[in-house]
Amino acid sequence: MIVNMSDNATEQQIEHIIQRVLEAGFQPHVTRGTERTIVAAVGSGGRRHEIEALSVAPGVDNVVAIAQPFKLVSRQTRPEPSVVNVDGVKIGGPEVVVIAGPCSVESREQMLETALGVKRAGATMLRGGAYKPRTSPYEFQGLGIEALRILGEVRDLTGLPVVTEVMSTEDVDLICEYADMLQVGARNMQNFALLRRLATVNKPILLKRGPSATVKEWLLAAEYLLSGGNHQVALCERGIKTFETATRNTMDLAAIALAKELSHLPIVADPSHGTGKPSLIGMVSRGAVAVGADALIIEVHRCPERALSDGAQSLDIPQFERVMQGLHLPLRPVMSFATGIADDQHQGGSVLGDRSL
Amino acid sequence: MIVNMSDNATEQQIEHIIQRVLEAGFQPHVTRGTERTIVAAVGSGGRRHEIEALSVAPGVDNVVAIAQPFKLVSRQTRPEPSVVNVDGVKIGGPEVVVIAGPCSVESREQMLETALGVKRAGATMLRGGAYKPRTSPYEFQGLGIEALRILGEVRDLTGLPVVTEVMSTEDVDLICEYADMLQVGARNMQNFALLRRLATVNKPILLKRGPSATVKEWLLAAEYLLSGGNHQVALCERGIKTFETATRNTMDLAAIALAKELSHLPIVADPSHGTGKPSLIGMVSRGAVAVGADALIIEVHRCPERALSDGAQSLDIPQFERVMQGLHLPLRPVMSFATGIADDQHQGGSVLGDRSL
Amino acid sequence: MIVNMSDNATEQQIEHIIQRVLEAGFQPHVTRGTERTIVAAVGSGGRRHEIEALSVAPGVDNVVAIAQPFKLVSRQTRPEPSVVNVDGVKIGGPEVVVIAGPCSVESREQMLETALGVKRAGATMLRGGAYKPRTSPYEFQGLGIEALRILGEVRDLTGLPVVTEVMSTEDVDLICEYADMLQVGARNMQNFALLRRLATVNKPILLKRGPSATVKEWLLAAEYLLSGGNHQVALCERGIKTFETATRNTMDLAAIALAKELSHLPIVADPSHGTGKPSLIGMVSRGAVAVGADALIIEVHRCPERALSDGAQSLDIPQFERVMQGLHLPLRPVMSFATGIADDQHQGGSVLGDRSL
Amino acid sequence: MIVNMSDNATEQQIEHIIQRVLEAGFQPHVTRGTERTIVAAVGSGGRRHEIEALSVAPGVDNVVAIAQPFKLVSRQTRPEPSVVNVDGVKIGGPEVVVIAGPCSVESREQMLETALGVKRAGATMLRGGAYKPRTSPYEFQGLGIEALRILGEVRDLTGLPVVTEVMSTEDVDLICEYADMLQVGARNMQNFALLRRLATVNKPILLKRGPSATVKEWLLAAEYLLSGGNHQVALCERGIKTFETATRNTMDLAAIALAKELSHLPIVADPSHGTGKPSLIGMVSRGAVAVGADALIIEVHRCPERALSDGAQSLDIPQFERVMQGLHLPLRPVMSFATGIADDQHQGGSVLGDRSL
Repeated sequence: MIVNMSDNATEQQIEHIIQRVLEAGFQPHVTRGTERTIVAAVGSGGRRHEIEALSVAPGVDNVVAIAQPFKLVSRQTRPEPSVVNVDGVKIGGPEVVVIAGPCSVESREQMLETALGVKRAGATMLRGGAYKPRTSPYEFQGLGIEALRILGEVRDLTGLPVVTEVMSTEDVDLICEYADMLQVGARNMQNFALLRRLATVNKPILLKRGPSATVKEWLLAAEYLLSGGNHQVALCERGIKTFETATRNTMDLAAIALAKELSHLPIVADPSHGTGKPSLIGMVSRGAVAVGADALIIEVHRCPERALSDGAQSLDIPQFERVMQGLHLPLRPVMSFATGIADDQHQGGSVLGDRSL
Repeated sequence: MIVNMSDNATEQQIEHIIQRVLEAGFQPHVTRGTERTIVAAVGSGGRRHEIEALSVAPGVDNVVAIAQPFKLVSRQTRPEPSVVNVDGVKIGGPEVVVIAGPCSVESREQMLETALGVKRAGATMLRGGAYKPRTSPYEFQGLGIEALRILGEVRDLTGLPVVTEVMSTEDVDLICEYADMLQVGARNMQNFALLRRLATVNKPILLKRGPSATVKEWLLAAEYLLSGGNHQVALCERGIKTFETATRNTMDLAAIALAKELSHLPIVADPSHGTGKPSLIGMVSRGAVAVGADALIIEVHRCPERALSDGAQSLDIPQFERVMQGLHLPLRPVMSFATGIADDQHQGGSVLGDRSL
Repeated sequence: MIVNMSDNATEQQIEHIIQRVLEAGFQPHVTRGTERTIVAAVGSGGRRHEIEALSVAPGVDNVVAIAQPFKLVSRQTRPEPSVVNVDGVKIGGPEVVVIAGPCSVESREQMLETALGVKRAGATMLRGGAYKPRTSPYEFQGLGIEALRILGEVRDLTGLPVVTEVMSTEDVDLICEYADMLQVGARNMQNFALLRRLATVNKPILLKRGPSATVKEWLLAAEYLLSGGNHQVALCERGIKTFETATRNTMDLAAIALAKELSHLPIVADPSHGTGKPSLIGMVSRGAVAVGADALIIEVHRCPERALSDGAQSLDIPQFERVMQGLHLPLRPVMSFATGIADDQHQGGSVLGDRSL
Repeated sequence: MIVNMSDNATEQQIEHIIQRVLEAGFQPHVTRGTERTIVAAVGSGGRRHEIEALSVAPGVDNVVAIAQPFKLVSRQTRPEPSVVNVDGVKIGGPEVVVIAGPCSVESREQMLETALGVKRAGATMLRGGAYKPRTSPYEFQGLGIEALRILGEVRDLTGLPVVTEVMSTEDVDLICEYADMLQVGARNMQNFALLRRLATVNKPILLKRGPSATVKEWLLAAEYLLSGGNHQVALCERGIKTFETATRNTMDLAAIALAKELSHLPIVADPSHGTGKPSLIGMVSRGAVAVGADALIIEVHRCPERALSDGAQSLDIPQFERVMQGLHLPLRPVMSFATGIADDQHQGGSVLGDRSL
C-alpha cells in the first residue's frame, strides 16, 4: 500500500507516517519527489486497515491499495479453472451447462411440465424458487417447504439436478435436504451471516453478483465461502444497475471475461434478469458463451403471462427451444479483404492496395 | 395499470387481454387510438402481477403501472409525520437529532471516551458497531456480544440511547437486550428474512437505503416492517453508488426531500458513508438538514487513524465539534437586487431597470 | 400519451386536462377508475410537449409516453437492415467488418506500419485520430491537418478506407476531403450543431453512443442525421459509465441486440474503449459479434507503451492477430444431457430420468 | 505517478520500466517489496501519458496517478475564491445570487412578464434559451436570433443581466452581442472545440457539469477555459445520471462542497434540471446553499403547462416566490440534550446521565 503525502507535508508528518507503517507491521520505503513524498508500506504480514486509516492523518493526501485483497478465489492461488460438480453436471468443464426453469415453483404440474420441456430442449439442470425475495411485501413470496418437496420430486422424476435460492440462515438445513445447489440471490450477495453459514455446507453454491457490486466485491463475497471451507462455488453475473432503463439491468458481459481472468471459479450468466426482455435472451446468451461463461441460467415458464412472478421476463418452452438452437449457430464470419474490395485488385497478393499505383 | 398494445395488434389479441384483465380481478377500459389501442385495468382489488405478466402476451408492447405500490408508509395513508421515540430522543420532531460514535466498538475506554466527547459536543444518541458487515472476510468483524455489553454500559453511564447494526435474524434477541434502536445496514436493505423478523420486535428500526436501491424500493423495504407490525421506523439516506469516485458514495440529498414528500417516516442522513471524506461532512450535514433530514448519524473516533474500521471517514472529537457548530450557522443571505447593481439606479422602486430610459 | 390524474383530482381539473388535450391536437379518451382517472391523448398529429407539460397541471400525478419518439431510424419504418457502404466495405452485410488502427495518427511511418500490420491480420478498414478530444488541455491534441494528409496517403497505399473523428463543424469540409467515414465521438453524441452539419454531408457517419446516453437517446441522435438527409449512419457501442471501475467503461452488449431490434442501422462495437484493458478485448470482441454487432473497431499501435494517447488500452500487432484468430473460433458446445449423467441411464431415450424408478 | 510491477515481474522488466521512466523525463525511484516492486516516476516536468501507457508493458500490473491533473482552476494555485462579475452581479461573493427565467425564450411578452415576476421575487439575473439542445430533432429548437433580440431588450428594460446557452462555435460572436454570460450546456461540457473558442471571449462562462462527468473531468473542462485565457468561469452542478428514476437526475450536492474544496471557482446549482420535479426545487435550493453554492439557476415560466420546453420542471411565478421565501428560513435547530431526556435528569450539569447511578 502507498501513502501519498500532500504537497506541503512537514518532515514531522512524514516521520509520523513512517512510524505508523512500522507499527502496522510493514516496512516503510520512502520516495521523495520534487513536489511530494510517498511512503510505501511493504510486506505481506501487516494490518492493511491501519494503513488505510492513515488517509486522515495530518499531511496525508490519500492512500492507495495495490495488491488485490482476495486470495483463495484468485488465479494466482490456483491457476487451473475449478469445476463445480452438481450431482454429475459439471459447471466449468469443456461444455456449456444450461440451467432452466420457472422463477417460482407454483405447483407440481407446472414444475414437471416445465422440467420435461426444458430437458427435451437440452437443459441439464433445473431452477425454481421456493423462497422468493420480493421487492414488495404484497407480492407472492413463494410456496416454501411445499415448493421444496415438489422440486425434490421433479428432480427424481427427470434426473435434472435442482438449484434453488436460500434467503435465510434458518432455512439452510431444510433446503439442503431437497436441493443439489443453493443460490445466494443478488440482494443477499453481501449478507455475510448467510455466507458464513453456507461456507460450512456440503453443497455447491451459486453466488449471484449484487446489482451494485464491483467485480472485486463479488470475488470477496466468494472469498467468504472459500475461506470458510466451501470451495464448490460458481459465480453468476445477472446484470448491474445503471442509468439505462430499456433493459431491466445492464448485463456486464465483460465482467465475465474479467472474473475468469482474476479467478479460477466458473461463471454462470443469467440473461433473464440481466435483460428482463424475452426478445433479447437468445442473443445475450450467445454473447455470454462467447465471452467465456461456463453456464447459463434462464427463466422458462409453460405460460409466462400466467406466472406468479417474473412472467414478464420468462420464455415459454418453444421460445426456449429457439434460444437453445441459437447457441449452436456459429459466430458470423469476418469480412476478408477480398470481399470488401473488388477481387481483381488483390491478385498479386500484395498487402498494398492498387490505388497506390 | 395500463396495457399498451403494439401497433399491429389484432382484434383477437385485444380481446384476449380484455379477458385476462377480467380474470385478474380488474375492470378493462379500452381506448382505441388511430395507431394503437390501450387497455386500462381499473379497480383496486385485482392481482397486479397478472397484469404485469401480460407484457409477454402476443400483441402487447408494454405494461405501465401507475399507482405507487406502497401503502402503510405513504403520506396518503398518514398525512402527518411520524415521530420515532428512541428512549426519549424524538426523531421526526421539531429539532434535528445528532447520532454519533465510532464505526466499531473496540474497547470500553474507546466507547466511553467517544461517548462523552460527542455528548459534550451536542450529540443525543450513540452509534457503535458490534457485528460488522465487511467486504472482505479478512477484515475486523466486530467484537460481538462483548461490544453489546460495552454499549449497554456506556449507554447507562452517559444516558445516550444506543443504535447498533443487526446482521442476522439469529442475533435479533440478543441485540434487543442491549440496544435502544436496531440498524439494518445498506447491504441488508432487501434481506427480507431479516426485515420480517424485525417487524415483530418492539424496538425502533433504522433502515438504511441500499447502495443501488431506488427511493421506491427503499420505501417498500420499510413497508415490510410496517405491514409486519413495527411502525417505529426511521429511514436513513447514506449515499448511492454512481460513476463518481471522488466521494465514497453519492449522497442523494434530493431523495430526502422526495422520501419526505412520499412518506410520513422520519429520515436520518449519514454523511460519513455518503461522502467518505471527513472534510465534506460538515457542509453535507448542513445540506441534509436544509433539505429536511430529521437527524444525522456521524462516525466519530477518538483517534481515526487508529480505528479498526472506517478510520478514513471518521471525524475526531474536535472535528465533530466544528461540524456541530456549523449546524448553527445560518444559510447565506440571498443577494438583493440593490446589492448587485449600483444603488442609485433603484431609488424609484421601479422593477424596471434604469437602462430602459 | 397518457395523463394520470391524482387520486383526489376534481371534475374541474379533469375537464381542464380534456380541454388541453384537444388544444394540443389530440383526441382525449377518459377512463374513470374506482380510485383514479386517466386521460389518454390519442392521435398522431398533436404536439407531444404540450401533453408532457401537463404533468404540472393541478390534479395531475404524472404523464406517460407510450410510442417511441424516433421515426426514420426505426425498424417499423424500414424492416430490412441498412448497409453502410464505406468505399466498398459494407457494414451491415453478411460478414463482420474489422476496423483497426491507432488512437492518434503520430507519424507517416507509424500509420503505414500499423495499417500494413492490421491489414495482414484481416482488418478491412483503418482508424486514426487527427483531432483528439482529450479530457485535459495539457494532453496531446492530435496532429490536425498533417494527420489527415497522412491518413489519405496511407489509405491510398493500402487500399483501406479510413474513419477519423470530427470534433467541430468548422473541420467538416477539410476532413471530408481525406476521410471515407466521419466519426462522432462519444462526448459529442449530443452536439446537435455538429449532427445537423453532418446530416448534410455525403459521407457515412460512425455515431458513438455517449457514456451516459440511453439507447433511446442514441437512436434520437441518429435521427438528427437521417432527418437532415444523411442515411449512411452506423451506430457504435463503446461502453457506458457505471459504478464499476475495474473496466474503463461497462460494455453494454445487450444494447447492441436491443438497438438492432429497434433500428435498421448497423452497429459497430468498440471493445477498446468499452473495456480499456487489452487482455479483455479478444473475448469481448467475440461477445459483440455473438450478440449481433456488424463490425468491430479496435485500437492497435505498433508499440502501445510509446503511444501518444490511449496506449494503455491499445493492442500491439501480434495481440491483434490473436484477437482476429479468436473471432474464428466457434462458441463452446452446449452440454448434452448424456454428458452430464452416466450414459446408461439414457438408453431408453426417455426424458424421465432413471431415478424415477 | 507509480508503476506497480506484477508479482512475477523479472529483473529485466523492472529495468525496462526504469529506463522508460527516465526517457519520459521523470526520476525513477524503486521500492522492492517482499512480493512486488513499485517504480515511482518523480518530478514535474515529464510526459505523463508515457507513464500511463506503461500499464501495457510486460511485467506491469497497473499505473496509478497521484497528483491532480488540473492546475489553474486549483485552490493550490489560487487559495482565495474567485468572483465572477456579470455586469455588476457578483457570483462568488458573500451573497447568494438567484438566476431565474424560462427554459426557452418563446415571445417578448412571455420573457418580459417572467423577468418582471422573477425580479419582483428577488432574482438578480435572467436565464432564457435561444438555441436549445433537444434530445429529438422533432422538438422545439429555440427561436435563435429572434430570441437573442428579445433577451437583449428585456435585459435593457429590467436591468437583469442575461445568461443564455451557446451550442456551436459559429454562434459565439452573435450571442456575445446580446448576452452577459454564456452557458455551456451539460451535453457540451466536453465539446473541446467550443471550450477552446470560449476561452478567447471576453464574457463570463457558466460551465455545466456533464451528466456523467466526474468532478475531476468537470474541473479539467474548466481548465480548458482558463488555460486558454478566460478566467471568468462559474461551474454549474445540475445533477448526474444514476439508476434512480424518481428524479430526472441525481443532484450531487456533495460535489458542490468538493469542487469548492478543490477549486477557487464559484459554483451555481441548478435544482430544476437536478430534480426535474417542481415540488422538490425549494428544499433542494436550500440544500445547495447550505453546502456552499454561490448561486442558483431556476426555471420559471408564467404558465409551465404551456411552455414549449421543460414545462414539466418549471415553476410558475407564485411557486418561485415561495422558493425564494424558503431560502430565508433558518436551518432547523439541533436537539439539545435536555430536550430529548426529561429535564430533571440534567440538573447537575454532568455529562454522565443519571442512569449511571
